[in-house]
Amino acid sequence: MPQLLRVQNFTVSADGIGAGEDQTLERPFGHLNPGEMFAWAGATASWPNRTDPGGTRGLDDYFTRDFTHNIGAEIMGRNKFGPQRGPWQDHEWQGWWGDEPPFRTPVFVMTHHPRPSFTLSDTTFHFVDGPPQRVLELAREAADGKDVRLGGGVTTVRQFLDAGLVDTLHVAVSPVKAHSGLRLWDSPVDLLDRYHLEVVPSPSGVTHHLFWRR
Amino acid sequence: MPQLLRVQNFTVSADGIGAGEDQTLERPFGHLNPGEMFAWAGATASWPNRTDPGGTRGLDDYFTRDFTHNIGAEIMGRNKFGPQRGPWQDHEWQGWWGDEPPFRTPVFVMTHHPRPSFTLSDTTFHFVDGPPQRVLELAREAADGKDVRLGGGVTTVRQFLDAGLVDTLHVAVSPVKAHSGLRLWDSPVDLLDRYHLEVVPSPSGVTHHLFWRR
Repeated sequence: MPQLLRVQNFTVSADGIGAGEDQTLERPFGHLNPGEMFAWAGATASWPNRTDPGGTRGLDDYFTRDFTHNIGAEIMGRNKFGPQRGPWQDHEWQGWWGDEPPFRTPVFVMTHHPRPSFTLSDTTFHFVDGPPQRVLELAREAADGKDVRLGGGVTTVRQFLDAGLVDTLHVAVSPVKAHSGLRLWDSPVDLLDRYHLEVVPSPSGVTHHLFWRR
Repeated sequence: MPQLLRVQNFTVSADGIGAGEDQTLERPFGHLNPGEMFAWAGATASWPNRTDPGGTRGLDDYFTRDFTHNIGAEIMGRNKFGPQRGPWQDHEWQGWWGDEPPFRTPVFVMTHHPRPSFTLSDTTFHFVDGPPQRVLELAREAADGKDVRLGGGVTTVRQFLDAGLVDTLHVAVSPVKAHSGLRLWDSPVDLLDRYHLEVVPSPSGVTHHLFWRR
């Protein structure tokens, strides 16, 4: 079995924007409202942050429960890990996810400013400086034969797409426009020279875009 | 987490028929052509019987790869297990699936004619006589906290639906009519008093019907 690099449940606005402006400690998505952006996933039974029973078990639930399917490691950009820029002032910040991050695998954070690895529950964060190909090699080794998830944000997904390293890409396009912020694409057809595409509208209002290599 | 009873990837014709007439050793689906019925699943990258690399990674692949997701046991009817009727003449027949059945969990075959359990690779077949509620109890115990898949055929799915035991039901409706055979339903709306329903057309031509309890 090949070890795929998969982007999963990556959500953008109707105009292709995946991260807002002015990211802060309080607003990981900047001016974008994550409650609105991720409402499609939050409504499902398999949403990892769900605290009550219930939730939908229709189409969107297949996507939320596939998040961990055959995944052995995650790669993320530094801006997904935290709002800090430049050299670390201290190592107190351990990500947005509290004591039990939902990844439950090794996570490789791409940054020019390395710091020591640390473990929270089943997730170990490593900090690596290197080109996408090298980071992917490290993640594949750690994934123990399983696939690697490319977690975002926008800049990181673009870097790996531009390097030709992404095997499958699932983007949920929300019905709401963001107007400004970091853009994943001008249009999904930008990728059609290299990928097959299926467009699947969900009753929740998002439109799932499923890409895989030609 | 509740242990769900899930019907997965159950395929019927456009007129609701899931098993053909005149099942034999050579024709497990009777007069229906399984190659045609299951073409939607066979085309995907995650189809368990795939021998070559490749295959699609769009919508239908989510369904084929979800087949094993959090499943700890399967329940099937005797007609899914084999074409024999009445008391076993011998115990030579071990199912349609060869030395490596795709279930990889305990499987409970419902029959009035018990026989000894046996194991093929990661799959152990047990033969149990009892009402659906009792068989489900046994399967839940064996599933070790995971969900139980209800594998079919039509008669068995109907029995468990009628007993109110099915939590989620995924039916792929093929575009081709069968005209005769065992019918799962007159129409999917028959179940709407008890289930939510999402209807998701796939580019492959099948229409996925996703039911979950109200």
